[in-house]
Amino acid sequence: MTIAFIGLGSMGIPMARNLMSAGFQIHGYDANPKALSVFAAHGGRPGLSAAEAAANADVVILMVVNAAQAQDVLFSDGVLDVLAPNGTVVLMATCPPGAVKSMADRVERTGRSFVDAPVSGGVAGAEAATLTIIVGASDESFQRLSPVFRALGDKLFHVGTEAGQGATVKVVNQLLCGVHIAVAAEGFALAKKVGVDPKIILEILAGSSAASWMLKDRGPRMLEEDPAVSSAVDIFVKDLGLVLDAGREAKAALPLAAAAYQMFLATSGRGEGAADDSQVIRSYNLLNQPRSSA
Amino acid sequence: MTIAFIGLGSMGIPMARNLMSAGFQIHGYDANPKALSVFAAHGGRPGLSAAEAAANADVVILMVVNAAQAQDVLFSDGVLDVLAPNGTVVLMATCPPGAVKSMADRVERTGRSFVDAPVSGGVAGAEAATLTIIVGASDESFQRLSPVFRALGDKLFHVGTEAGQGATVKVVNQLLCGVHIAVAAEGFALAKKVGVDPKIILEILAGSSAASWMLKDRGPRMLEEDPAVSSAVDIFVKDLGLVLDAGREAKAALPLAAAAYQMFLATSGRGEGAADDSQVIRSYNLLNQPRSSA
Repeated sequence: MTIAFIGLGSMGIPMARNLMSAGFQIHGYDANPKALSVFAAHGGRPGLSAAEAAANADVVILMVVNAAQAQDVLFSDGVLDVLAPNGTVVLMATCPPGAVKSMADRVERTGRSFVDAPVSGGVAGAEAATLTIIVGASDESFQRLSPVFRALGDKLFHVGTEAGQGATVKVVNQLLCGVHIAVAAEGFALAKKVGVDPKIILEILAGSSAASWMLKDRGPRMLEEDPAVSSAVDIFVKDLGLVLDAGREAKAALPLAAAAYQMFLATSGRGEGAADDSQVIRSYNLLNQPRSSA
Repeated sequence: MTIAFIGLGSMGIPMARNLMSAGFQIHGYDANPKALSVFAAHGGRPGLSAAEAAANADVVILMVVNAAQAQDVLFSDGVLDVLAPNGTVVLMATCPPGAVKSMADRVERTGRSFVDAPVSGGVAGAEAATLTIIVGASDESFQRLSPVFRALGDKLFHVGTEAGQGATVKVVNQLLCGVHIAVAAEGFALAKKVGVDPKIILEILAGSSAASWMLKDRGPRMLEEDPAVSSAVDIFVKDLGLVLDAGREAKAALPLAAAAYQMFLATSGRGEGAADDSQVIRSYNLLNQPRSSA
């Protein structure tokens, strides 16, 4: 099985490396020459273009930034045309379910297969090969790709046979994550307004039925003025944007996601999109702060 | 130390029993004669009225339903007047911080002390004496009452020296709990609309960064048509109502709490307030359901 890997960023490089460690031969491409040389240094075979990397490949894995980049690679850069006639496109980037479905339709019209396989677990999961991989694909495609997925992650879920179903689950995951961060900030901001020490609140909440993974992870950083960036505000502007796109496509109302999105968006709009996502709390504090101290 | 315990409901009875097991003599009162006879059967000394139970007591513990009942007991039923002149009022019911503060002011004007001490942990915690007790009180009152609190719970937090600060922490706790339940329902409803099996979503989310205590506890019941009632929708109509009251008092905007409240309120408004609180998901499903199948 020859594999082309397009998109060698902070997730893509360790994923490609884990595939090579598992014995797969990987041709790769990234528009950034520096990423491409890191890939080559790890033993990968860089292509001069996405289409050159994907020529006659059995499988092309897309780990690009978003749906627009995936569409460009497949349809404008010519990757789909050069793929083996019975080849498979595996989309692992997080994209809106509707966009995934329309890409799948266009790929399948050429007789090739499409697998919707977004991941969760971040750079740490990519490096340790402990990603959660959420797959929407036919049973046959799922079976065929399983050895590839097992080289990348240790939690593999086949959630449905249609493209877009993996993307939907990823979107629901991000819906809960984004709202859990925002509601923790909402609680701390209320406590601050009333003059209760947020450290003691965090200790109480983290041990009660109010606990969440995000409260325990982001809560301590919410209490810092300018914490180190673990994941940026703009990632949740993008991800909650995807959540709302998915709701619009499905015509499903998402009132909590919509409200949480506004708070991340306002944070980014003040020029703080590169700050740690815990700093969405600044939007709550500003919203509730008397003018003199603003 | 003589203690009067007012409010012998599903929380109050086991709390009074744990105090008696720890060696305290308890006079008690509840407007419901049945509750009062259960209390007597456990060895408590029932009063004919709240004031009779509280006559000359050093401490009166209020475990009534809400702030209005607490005010009635203290100021209309005469409990404050009959309490020992250096006595202490311990409010353990969940109340809005502003109402707690005004009760405290009125109690303290008579030379008596006030302790704001809401609890978390439910009936299970009350029975096992494993309640979380969140105390706003002077250092002196906190020290004096600590043996009482240690008979009731195993997680004791002194969060501030002002009445209302304990109530605020409890309110922040309920803010996160209520939003965590609603956002889980929002996620499952989106998945349902797109045709992804909610069971597999629950499995993925409960093991990911999207996890919360509430997702793991309420999530499985959200997937049932008519689950057994563990805690009712109307409890969160009340508790998120308290959260919004607290926000109004502090003039702090709480956009996520406000949105979540609407979903619990609508569920109760359809006559389903006694259903398990996981069934807030019905409001999401109805909101997104085509007319023919409604």
